Amino acid sequence: MKAEIVSIGTELLFGEIDDTNATYISRHLTSAGIDVHLRHAVDDELDRIVQVLGAAMRRSDAVITCGGLGPTPDDLTRQAIAQVTNRALQTVPAAEQQLRDFFAKRHRKVSSNNLRQCQVPRGGQLLGNSVGTAPGLLIEHEDCTLIAVPGPPPEMRQMMTDHVMPYLRERLTQQQQSSLFTRTLRVADIGESDLAQQLEDILADQSDLALALYASPGEVRIRMHTKAPSQQEANKKLGDLENSVRQRLGEHIYGTDDETMEVAVGQVLVAASATLAVAESCTGGLVASRITDVPGSSRYFQGGYVTYSNELKQQLLGVPAQIIQQHGAVSEECAQAMAEGARQSSGADYALAVTGVAGPDGGTPQKPVGRVYIAVADEQETICQQFDWPGTRSQFKQRTSQMALNMLRKRVLGLV
Amino acid sequence: MKAEIVSIGTELLFGEIDDTNATYISRHLTSAGIDVHLRHAVDDELDRIVQVLGAAMRRSDAVITCGGLGPTPDDLTRQAIAQVTNRALQTVPAAEQQLRDFFAKRHRKVSSNNLRQCQVPRGGQLLGNSVGTAPGLLIEHEDCTLIAVPGPPPEMRQMMTDHVMPYLRERLTQQQQSSLFTRTLRVADIGESDLAQQLEDILADQSDLALALYASPGEVRIRMHTKAPSQQEANKKLGDLENSVRQRLGEHIYGTDDETMEVAVGQVLVAASATLAVAESCTGGLVASRITDVPGSSRYFQGGYVTYSNELKQQLLGVPAQIIQQHGAVSEECAQAMAEGARQSSGADYALAVTGVAGPDGGTPQKPVGRVYIAVADEQETICQQFDWPGTRSQFKQRTSQMALNMLRKRVLGLV
Repeated sequence: MKAEIVSIGTELLFGEIDDTNATYISRHLTSAGIDVHLRHAVDDELDRIVQVLGAAMRRSDAVITCGGLGPTPDDLTRQAIAQVTNRALQTVPAAEQQLRDFFAKRHRKVSSNNLRQCQVPRGGQLLGNSVGTAPGLLIEHEDCTLIAVPGPPPEMRQMMTDHVMPYLRERLTQQQQSSLFTRTLRVADIGESDLAQQLEDILADQSDLALALYASPGEVRIRMHTKAPSQQEANKKLGDLENSVRQRLGEHIYGTDDETMEVAVGQVLVAASATLAVAESCTGGLVASRITDVPGSSRYFQGGYVTYSNELKQQLLGVPAQIIQQHGAVSEECAQAMAEGARQSSGADYALAVTGVAGPDGGTPQKPVGRVYIAVADEQETICQQFDWPGTRSQFKQRTSQMALNMLRKRVLGLV
Repeated sequence: MKAEIVSIGTELLFGEIDDTNATYISRHLTSAGIDVHLRHAVDDELDRIVQVLGAAMRRSDAVITCGGLGPTPDDLTRQAIAQVTNRALQTVPAAEQQLRDFFAKRHRKVSSNNLRQCQVPRGGQLLGNSVGTAPGLLIEHEDCTLIAVPGPPPEMRQMMTDHVMPYLRERLTQQQQSSLFTRTLRVADIGESDLAQQLEDILADQSDLALALYASPGEVRIRMHTKAPSQQEANKKLGDLENSVRQRLGEHIYGTDDETMEVAVGQVLVAASATLAVAESCTGGLVASRITDVPGSSRYFQGGYVTYSNELKQQLLGVPAQIIQQHGAVSEECAQAMAEGARQSSGADYALAVTGVAGPDGGTPQKPVGRVYIAVADEQETICQQFDWPGTRSQFKQRTSQMALNMLRKRVLGLV
């Protein structure tokens, strides 16, 4: 089954917001084994919407539109669908009653604009919206099914789950059903081009089983996908590929699929029955915040010291004034003292500390912007590494937190 | 001038990643006064790319493609442009030499795939890439200019700045030049539907001066835009509209354009020559991390206490064990004691404290998931507010941090 997605709304074409709805719909259709070859975004202009819909309907078995179903005059999707299918709009009485009840409860008047939302082109049906007021609609026309969902993301997602995916899956069972299965391996400490070299032969040998690399600040995701009639068959194919990748990369792979670094850190700490505290200067709380993004992190995370000022480094962590005077707050010595102080003060098994120059100001020739020291203290010893990152303040914080968590992960695993 | 954007890459259609490049290009073209009515995403399939490009070139004055310029066999943009313009590909000798030098420096062999990047359809020109190896290309064909930029975001952005925008602006000066000017007002403590009611008459009266609301967790942005031949004329129109919105919303507007809440907080603290410390439980460091996202925040931010465990709340902040026993760690009393303890320990003028139940577990009938207490202490007194948020753990952290920073902002301004 071939599908196209049409996002409708001038704000998209202005570049005000990312079209995350299109991403969501693409991913869900693709996972169900539907081919999405084309996607469009069009502004709130009736003739253009009609033109785009017409072309998409001629090419594809299903066309999903998103947006333009609201009550304002620039919501034109309903009208465009009526025009492109050449059918009159008719009011659905049950929907009108529901809308009138909704407004009566809130002591608000129903306008004629609101009532337009209860109309559907002859032969079509409205799709219920359990989290908002704008119903969707579905109409089969010639060889194509046209489905319209609202633009607010929670309403779109709910309607995809409640109506669109069940409808499309039902249609797919009548055809050959073969779904797309994916698996992602995540690596934090090897760059994209080095990974591409290490996996060169696998990348070159793409068949129905494909592998691709996606880089973002602080990590590369290795994504494998294949089409198969069942999860079992997919597991076999993907498993073989995963094994050969794992043989080369070993413990550099910190997680799979949606497992973030903070999740991986939580897992190794739980497995080791160990607790953690963190002391942060330049990351300003980001490391602690990421750790506590994980539900249940209170089992192993005791707390964090965001010692931005030198006074607090001394007062809370017991960093000797002499170290700050001699080596500076951005130094291997200070990072180690911070880690040891946090471990002692909190009583945690492990303590992680970071100190650096996030920029854009504050750099010196000896300690340039982007310099950072990361230390991990445990009962045996304290280790420390120096990094120098390019990029902005926010990239610096992101990369540093990622590398700090990865260093902790490897330490708990006994790899460093 | 009318432009269309064509994003090329199967990963987009899989819904693996958001097409943020399309957003970026849309915004920059729109700001320059170019009309972007349509945008497309197409997978790595030569015939389909050619079809989409052909249709776009017939409709628009400029077509910008993004992606598909790399060295792998599924990079087909160059070939598609040759085909749609019916011109042969020719190698540019200077570009080939540059690429050979690049590889020689890194002791790597140039493959024939790499050399394809130095080709351009007859009559076209290559666009230099200062941050990567894939050049872009530009070709004028019949009444349309076709421009191809690479897909990696840093390369795309650099090439837009270096080549694409200067070229398009030059073309625009030959036509009537009228740019789009925008201004955004940001509000954290009024919901979208309440704002829509308060601004109902302004929203209904849309002319060449338009206003729209965009909601995201913890805030609503009020975006105003107008087309005008100069910044001065735009300022006059937007200024009048801004004044009437400000008259209604007053200090609820915390910032304009790209000013985040953490920037606004920094501004009021600097203006008051005041310092700040924070004590966090449920937000786990997010409040501190946001404060330190602002360059120069070390001027007013002394540090943070991420007291996740009850022991650290007592040890670092001096919260009496009795408060935790009697009222629980999630209570007004605890929030106030945390704020006062942080203020005392750090010596800061203001201290902000949060404690709550982020979920998904840990809720009770008395203290359900989503409950949070936010306290601000200064030399006069300690104030505290209770909130109950719906939503996920990550939305909880986001909303709580936003509301906490806003409460601090209002306290420093003397509004609460």
